[in-house]
Order: sequence, then C-alpha cells, then structure tokens
Amino acid sequence: MNPGAGDEHSELFSRFTDESGGSGPNCLIVKFIGERETAIGYNKGLEEKNTLRPENMVAIQRNLNLAALEAEYSQKTPREILKFALENFDNISISFSGAEDVVLIDMASKITKNFRVFTLDTGRLHSETYQFLDRVRKHYGIKLEVMFPDAAEVQALVEEKGLFSFYQDGHKECCGVRKVKPLRRKLNTLDAWITGQRKDQSPSTRNGIPVIEVDSAFSTPDHELIKFNPLANWSSAEVWEYIRALEVPYNKLHERGFVSIGCEPCTRPVLPNQHEREGRWWWEEATVKECGLHAGNAQK
Amino acid sequence: MNPGAGDEHSELFSRFTDESGGSGPNCLIVKFIGERETAIGYNKGLEEKNTLRPENMVAIQRNLNLAALEAEYSQKTPREILKFALENFDNISISFSGAEDVVLIDMASKITKNFRVFTLDTGRLHSETYQFLDRVRKHYGIKLEVMFPDAAEVQALVEEKGLFSFYQDGHKECCGVRKVKPLRRKLNTLDAWITGQRKDQSPSTRNGIPVIEVDSAFSTPDHELIKFNPLANWSSAEVWEYIRALEVPYNKLHERGFVSIGCEPCTRPVLPNQHEREGRWWWEEATVKECGLHAGNAQK
Amino acid sequence: MNPGAGDEHSELFSRFTDESGGSGPNCLIVKFIGERETAIGYNKGLEEKNTLRPENMVAIQRNLNLAALEAEYSQKTPREILKFALENFDNISISFSGAEDVVLIDMASKITKNFRVFTLDTGRLHSETYQFLDRVRKHYGIKLEVMFPDAAEVQALVEEKGLFSFYQDGHKECCGVRKVKPLRRKLNTLDAWITGQRKDQSPSTRNGIPVIEVDSAFSTPDHELIKFNPLANWSSAEVWEYIRALEVPYNKLHERGFVSIGCEPCTRPVLPNQHEREGRWWWEEATVKECGLHAGNAQK
Amino acid sequence: MNPGAGDEHSELFSRFTDESGGSGPNCLIVKFIGERETAIGYNKGLEEKNTLRPENMVAIQRNLNLAALEAEYSQKTPREILKFALENFDNISISFSGAEDVVLIDMASKITKNFRVFTLDTGRLHSETYQFLDRVRKHYGIKLEVMFPDAAEVQALVEEKGLFSFYQDGHKECCGVRKVKPLRRKLNTLDAWITGQRKDQSPSTRNGIPVIEVDSAFSTPDHELIKFNPLANWSSAEVWEYIRALEVPYNKLHERGFVSIGCEPCTRPVLPNQHEREGRWWWEEATVKECGLHAGNAQK
Repeated sequence: MNPGAGDEHSELFSRFTDESGGSGPNCLIVKFIGERETAIGYNKGLEEKNTLRPENMVAIQRNLNLAALEAEYSQKTPREILKFALENFDNISISFSGAEDVVLIDMASKITKNFRVFTLDTGRLHSETYQFLDRVRKHYGIKLEVMFPDAAEVQALVEEKGLFSFYQDGHKECCGVRKVKPLRRKLNTLDAWITGQRKDQSPSTRNGIPVIEVDSAFSTPDHELIKFNPLANWSSAEVWEYIRALEVPYNKLHERGFVSIGCEPCTRPVLPNQHEREGRWWWEEATVKECGLHAGNAQK
Repeated sequence: MNPGAGDEHSELFSRFTDESGGSGPNCLIVKFIGERETAIGYNKGLEEKNTLRPENMVAIQRNLNLAALEAEYSQKTPREILKFALENFDNISISFSGAEDVVLIDMASKITKNFRVFTLDTGRLHSETYQFLDRVRKHYGIKLEVMFPDAAEVQALVEEKGLFSFYQDGHKECCGVRKVKPLRRKLNTLDAWITGQRKDQSPSTRNGIPVIEVDSAFSTPDHELIKFNPLANWSSAEVWEYIRALEVPYNKLHERGFVSIGCEPCTRPVLPNQHEREGRWWWEEATVKECGLHAGNAQK
Repeated sequence: MNPGAGDEHSELFSRFTDESGGSGPNCLIVKFIGERETAIGYNKGLEEKNTLRPENMVAIQRNLNLAALEAEYSQKTPREILKFALENFDNISISFSGAEDVVLIDMASKITKNFRVFTLDTGRLHSETYQFLDRVRKHYGIKLEVMFPDAAEVQALVEEKGLFSFYQDGHKECCGVRKVKPLRRKLNTLDAWITGQRKDQSPSTRNGIPVIEVDSAFSTPDHELIKFNPLANWSSAEVWEYIRALEVPYNKLHERGFVSIGCEPCTRPVLPNQHEREGRWWWEEATVKECGLHAGNAQK
Repeated sequence: MNPGAGDEHSELFSRFTDESGGSGPNCLIVKFIGERETAIGYNKGLEEKNTLRPENMVAIQRNLNLAALEAEYSQKTPREILKFALENFDNISISFSGAEDVVLIDMASKITKNFRVFTLDTGRLHSETYQFLDRVRKHYGIKLEVMFPDAAEVQALVEEKGLFSFYQDGHKECCGVRKVKPLRRKLNTLDAWITGQRKDQSPSTRNGIPVIEVDSAFSTPDHELIKFNPLANWSSAEVWEYIRALEVPYNKLHERGFVSIGCEPCTRPVLPNQHEREGRWWWEEATVKECGLHAGNAQK
C-alpha cells in the first residue's frame, strides 16, 4: 500500500493525498455531496462527513493514481480500458441497462470468461427489454444479477401517488426507489463498476465523463467505489458500428425509433436527427437529465 | 355467537359444526391442504394442522351460515352480492386485476364511497395495464393498494433461472413469487376479499365457483378468510354488456384482441371465437390453469 | 332448355316461370332495382328495364330451379354446396376477401384443383391483408385474380374529396369506386360466383341470405349471375373451428382483435363480445351496413 | 429565342448549344437514354431519337441558361430556389412523397398561395402515409393531385407474380407500374417539377444532384422537362431542424424509426446511426437504389 519512491505513479500519488487534495479541477477525490436529487433523504447528514478516511480509499490501497490513469487511458480504446478494469479489480461488475451498452458485455466476453454483469429491473421496463436481457444472458452464457426494488418502498410510493407520479413530480423520486436504491445495494458490495456512459449521450451532464473515476455518488466514507466508463469517448455512431459489424444482439426497440432506452413510461422514440436524450423524461427541463445512477455527472 | 334456537339459520349452523363437518360435497369448511402448487414450501407443515379452531372461524364468529348464504345469494345479482359483502365486512377489499373485473369497482362505487381496492403489481404487467390501473384510480377517486413482490425472492429466481423461466418450468413458481406471496401478505390483513372470478372463465377449474365461500387457499388455522365472487354466474358477454352500456373504463388491450389479461409474457390475444383461457399460459397443459390466486378452484 | 316432364325439378321450375313469377316472398327472380346505394349512376335507366329476358336467364338455360335447389341445399354442408357450385358451373370463381372466407378456398382445394379465386385490391387494404393474400396464393398453389380500381376514378374522387371522404360522406361512394366497380368488371365475365357471406355477420342485412340465389345486384338484363353462399348457415364459431382444426392460414389481424376485415381505414378491432359488424364503418348508422358487394341483401 | 449579345447568360448559353453540347461532365443537356431500369420497354426506340429538337427545349424557349442558373442557385437557400422555380414556371408542381419533403410545401405556402402539389398513390402506402397526405392537404388548404396506377397493369403484374414479386425480381418492375408510369402521366402535363431530393440521401446515386436540371429521365424529344431540387444541398439534419422549429406536420412513421419512407413492403425503420437508405429495398444490392422517379441520377 505504500507507494515506493521512484514508482512512476508516486509523484501523482502525492498530489492525491496532499493537503489541498480534492480541490483542483482535475482531482478525482470525492466530495460526497450526495444525491441531492433523489429527494429521499437517504444520505441525510452525509455532507458533514465529507472527509474520506484514507484507510477506506480503494485507490490508495491499491496504489492507483487515478488522475494519471485517466490521463493515460483516456487515449486508449474501450477494450483496453475494460481490460485494465477487469484485470485490476476482482470485485467488479458491468452495469448493463438493456440497451447499446451490450457492447461492454461483448468486449468483456472476448477478454475473459470471468466477468460479472448486473442490471436493474425497475419493474417498469419494456417487454422488449426483458426479452433482450434474457437473450443477452443466453447468448453470452452469463449469469445476470438482477436488482429489484424494495416492495415496501414501491408500495408506499404507488399507494400515495399512483403509478405515474413522475409526470407530475419529476422522475427523481421514482428513480430513487426503483433504480438508485437497488443500485446502491449492489454497489455497496463492489469495489468498482463499469458503465456504458458516453460523453455524447447528454451534452449538458456527460460532457466531462472520464474513463476512470472515483464514483462521487456511490462511494461512502467507509467504502470508496471506482467507476470505469470505457465508452466515454465513443460516439453513438461508433457504438452502433461495433454492434452491426460484430452482429451483437440488440434491443428490438432500437428497430422502432428508440435510441436511449430506460423505463417504459419514461422513454420514447426520437425523430430522425433528434438527440437521443430527448427520448427520456421529455416533460422535464431539457438541460439536466440524469437518473441518479450517474448523479455525480450533474454536479461537476 | 350462539345461534339462537328458532333462528332460521340454526339448523344449517348445526350442520356446520357437527362431527362430520367439512366432509360433505357441499360443505364449505376448509380442509387446508394448502397451495401445493406454489412449490415454495411457504406453508410447510400446514397439512398436519388441518383443523380450524372454532375461535378463529370468521363465519362462526359472525354467525354466518355460508352454505345457506350461498344458496340464497347464488340467485341474486352481482350488485346484491357485492352489497351484502361490503355491508357485512369492514375489513374487506376488492381484488382488481386490471381487466374486466373493473365492473366490481364500478358497482361498489355506486353502493358506497367506503370500499377498498388492491391490486398485484407483479413487475411484469403490460404498460397498458399500468395505465389502466391508474386511470381507474383517478376515475373513481379511489386509493389503489398495490402489492409488489419481495425483492430478494425475485432476484433469487431471476438470477438462477432468468426472466422467462415459466416457459420451461411452468408458471407456478414465478406466480408464487410475484402473485401468490404478495397476495397472501395482503389477505393476511383482511377478513374477506372480493374477486371477479366467473364460472365461464375456465371450464375446467372455475365451473363450480360459489358466490360466497371460505377461501380454502388463503385461510390459515389462525385466520379464516371469506371470499366473495359476485360475478361467478355472469357470462363474459354480460360483463361486457355492463362495461359498454355504463361506459366503464377498460384496459386498452381489450381493443387488441386480449380477453383474459395477466402478466405480459404470459398473456396473448385470442383468435375470434377462441376461449379466453387459451390466451393464458398457452404452452402448458390446457385443462387446469390457475395462477394460485384461486388455487382452491383446482382442488375442488 | 325445356325442363322435361317427370324431371324432379319440373314442378318447381314451373313456379319459377309462371305469371306471378318473382313476386312471392321466397321467389328468387331478380327485380333489378340496381345498386341505388352506390350513388354513382352506373346503372342509370336500369329500373325501367326490369324485365329479365328469358334467353339471358342462366338458371333457365341450365334448367336449374333455384328455389328448389335452395330448399334442398340450405340443409347441406358448406362443402356440399361448394361442390355443387363448382361441378355445375365452369365459369365460376370464389370471391376471397382476405379474411375468414379462406375456408372456401381450403374446401375447394379438397374438391378440385380447377377452381378460380379472385379478390378486390382496393388500394387501401392492411399490409397484413396483402401478406395474407399472397400466403394463401402460395399455400394453395393457386392463381389469384386481383381486381384493381380504375385510376381515373380514384384520382377524381381523391382530388376532389381527399383520401378519407368516407368519414364525412359515408362509405358508399368510395366503396363504389374501389370495390363495386372492379367487382362488376369481374362479375360481368362470370356466370356464377361464390361468397363467404354468413347470416350471423350482420343481423339486419344478412339474416335472410340463401345458400344459392340469383345475384340481384350484379345481374343485368343481358346477363344473369348466380351467387352461392356456402357459409350462409355457419356461425362465426363454426368457421373458426374449421380454421383452427384444419390449420388453415389466417390473416394475422385476427390475432389483434380484428374479426370482420375490410379496408384499413374502415375496419377496426372489436371488444370482447362485441358484434363483428361494429368493427366496420362504425361512424355510420349501425343498422344497415353493406359495402355494395352484396347490395341485394339490404333491399330484401 | 436567340440570346442577345451582351446578355449576361449568352456566353454560357453558347456552350449550351454548341456542337459538343451535352458531352461535358457538367453539361445539363439531356441524352435521353431513357429508363433502362424499368425493364418495361415503355420508351422503346427512344435512344435513336436522342436529339432534342430546339423548338421543344423549354430552357431555350425561356432563355434560361441552366448551367449558369445552377452555378448561381447552388449557393442559395432552398427557399430562394423554390421561389425562383415558382415565379418562373406557371406549369410546375411540387412532388410530395408523404415524407420529410413536406418542407417544400411549407416553404411554398409562405411564398405564394398558387402552387400545385401532386403525389403518387401506389396503392401500397402505409396507412400512416395516407393519413399524413390528408393532414397536409387540410393543414395547408391545398388540393392534392393524386396519381394512381393503371388497373390493367397492376392486375397483370399481380396475377402473374403475386403481390410481393419485388422481393424476388427486384423493385424496378413494380415501381415501373405503380410509380414511374403514373409519374410520367403527370410529368407529361408539366413544364417543370420540384422534388425533395437531397445529396445526402443516397451517397452513391444522389451525390451529384444539382439544384436545377433538365430532367433526363422524363423529358421526351417533344417535351423538355425542368427539374428543381431545392433541398439538394441540405442535410437530413437541416430538414428536420426546419420541421421541428416550424412545427411542420410530419409522417407519424418518423416516430417509429422510419427515416426514408416509400411503399409499405419496401420500407423499414433503420437502427440508430444507420443510413436512411438502408431502410429501402434492403434485400437488393446496396449501392445503387433509385425507384425510377429520379432514374437520371443512377446514370450520371
């Protein structure tokens, strides 16, 4: 755990642990401002504890200099980033949304047979997405770890506000119950996760996505979580070129005008040349749309 | 609780409590053979305890002679049966499946403003059904109590067998997790429930549905549950005549060839003149199809 | 042409040609009142010429006593009626609408390999109907004679009134151009045709459909046309029992709630237990709906 | 007709009529090689008559130097090109396909109330396209001239080859009957037409589309036809920006993944980032796809 002198990462490491740590624009140390957006108060009091104890910092323990890694890997291919992630973390899992992030699974399957995949079943996905999830499971011969929302929380929300409260109250409350909390349950068991986020998905919130980062939304003072975004620098066109060239299975909804795919009531097809983000939570303010899975993005 | 001599119900009551009680073909006393079908072992050991303690028998406590009531009310209209149920039980709720049993809600709304409705959200309903549930909620100004499956149980099933295990293993296991257990959670809190079951829905399993019965599947030695089936003697044609004549809201799936509606992957439209039951679990043996909600039917 | 004495049909034949011919309620002699409904004036002056010249009467020429045949064959099966028709007329064709009347083709294919089938392509059929027409063509190895509307007439109607004039002006004008006239072109070349009409299709207009009749709508003073309705006495349930039992191909629209199928803009699915006729021209007076193909029905 | 000396167009005009006329790569003089592709022989013998008689040359008659105009207008906006076309030709009509070329109608409606629009109803369009055609007709208060295929030709093709011959024999034969001939009937009555062709629609065949040209496919020795392509230099993105910004009505199919829209059996949605041309005649050689309306493109 003690970064040796002369280690090529040591200089950067020192920056990572010095007094001013975490304040610079490129610093990856987490500020833990929490998921303000979820409006559920899950992390009440979190802001006071905004000091990450070094003994809990995964990056430090592993002698990883994330800033240096980011600088290095931001020039590399998705496959190289993914390979690095899978080789350096045992307790890591790919987050699969049932959409075009299936390329991560395809790439991983060509790197190793030992990779894990989880997905969030919100209870409100399209039937095509359920079919796709199962097709991917069988196609790659993988086990799919499915996270499901807590019954009492869903029941409380629906009994109070009905099944479509998000159209009035915004999507954050429902996402909190059906996506963020089940995700947190899963992430609490992991050291790192891999997402399909791309910069071009959301000009306003995903523009600065690094290929590797400390997850500012889901780390806790007791548990640092690393997040890899191997597709960060790929465009939608590149993802689809990969899918079509390698005949990767895809969600049938993509044949019906859907680009970005989430829950059924909160997803719609887009018109030709319309940005994919306009197919999500279209009744809300257009500029800042994140579902809470990548809440850190909106805060950067 | 002591049926007075000369009471017109007393003679029948004595039959209800005598030694041979429960053995006759028309007897409504429950044998508690449990839900063998669910294959989950929830009620392990239930068969040994197959004696209902009188102090737990709702019918006895209320001095209701169900056999006599059944004889009387089987000649009455759905509205009359529903009215009896709602007037004689406080702790009673209508089970709404999101299909044509909406007529129960419509009838109830014309009897009283104080009725309860619950539904089972399995996490795999059609989007049209979710929309319909909410439309009904708003249309009648009611609170909809929604039961949701237990996260750990869904996760365990799906992680082991995928999202479509029912096509291989039969629907009972999945129904057990997504419907029967959440239903049991709800029924454990009730003295009676009201269903939309009809004799004509399933020639093989629903032919003998009474309008009032002790629920043989969901009563326990400590808790007797009464079940009302006000539509038992109505035909599908009568239900639809009611819906159309009174402009009751209906599930949009009914405009696309769906008659009987359940979970999305286990429901399909039927052809003209095809029995509605052929639209459910069509890959299984055609003769005995019940989802566990009315497991008692299959045992009669 | 002179029915021989002793012929078992002679007595009935004499009734067919006597002075009072055509006036009795069961008489099948045509009055030629024309297609008043088409509002196109195609048969202008037809009413004056309401005397059929004997030398043009197919039935007389062939020594067929239609009333007697009707009495005899109305008790027989569709197959027997169809067999009689195909064996007694060379210049005969089955009218196939692309819906459940496919049973006529299935039956005919088991009687002979020499039968003809025509259909009316209005230019506004469902894509599923076009697919079904071609599937039937290939499945039975038949040639499908397709009648298409006259370009100038369609252009004139559409340029004047747009593509959906029927919703304002009623369906008769459009049916006249797209169905009735192309049908007449075909029928003018035939001695007899075979339809899939059934009594139960339209309580108000098809109740009295005979299994064999002179076609009152499409015969002309110079050309008598015989019309067979082999399915007249079958119910929808019987037709569908046949389709399912013999695995006859069917229009995929029947899997989406469609029962009676015509042109796309003038056809809709029906609700469970709703009469199939409510799926056609639903914006018009419910009682008398015929498209002009069987205009004679409405006049009886 | 003799361009006066000093006329600013005279120099270019001389190039237009000199000996070598028509041979240069940028020359717009038509060679009249006909629609070889239609395989119908409609213009048999046309190649011999490949000399356009000057008295029939619209451009000459009108003293228009198309090459100069092309050079000038290729730098202008679609609106300016359209305005020039509508102001300089009385006998001109916009060709509307029922897709995103609706922007031409929107632009024209802001230039003048006196413009004509025609469309080709092949008898096989999507129901959504028919609805869209009529919505546009009503929205802009225009008369829509609809060309319909010849009945005898459609009947002959379908009777011989069925309703889906294009999947085996290629789309040219069917397009010939349902699109090219009806188009020719219309174009024979016009001096000029306006299309929604764009260079970016088909990299291989539409790359060189000028904004103004003599129509090499539909001019005849007796009748020169001018063709305007005001959108030639716009991208799909620009067209859709216009549609969305100005709330121009659009075909509902565009909400279901369809980009380029033609006949129902020959059109399909494309995947995200897939070129729109892959949604048309996808079973054929990918490189050269034109439907015969713009046959000249494939020959350049």
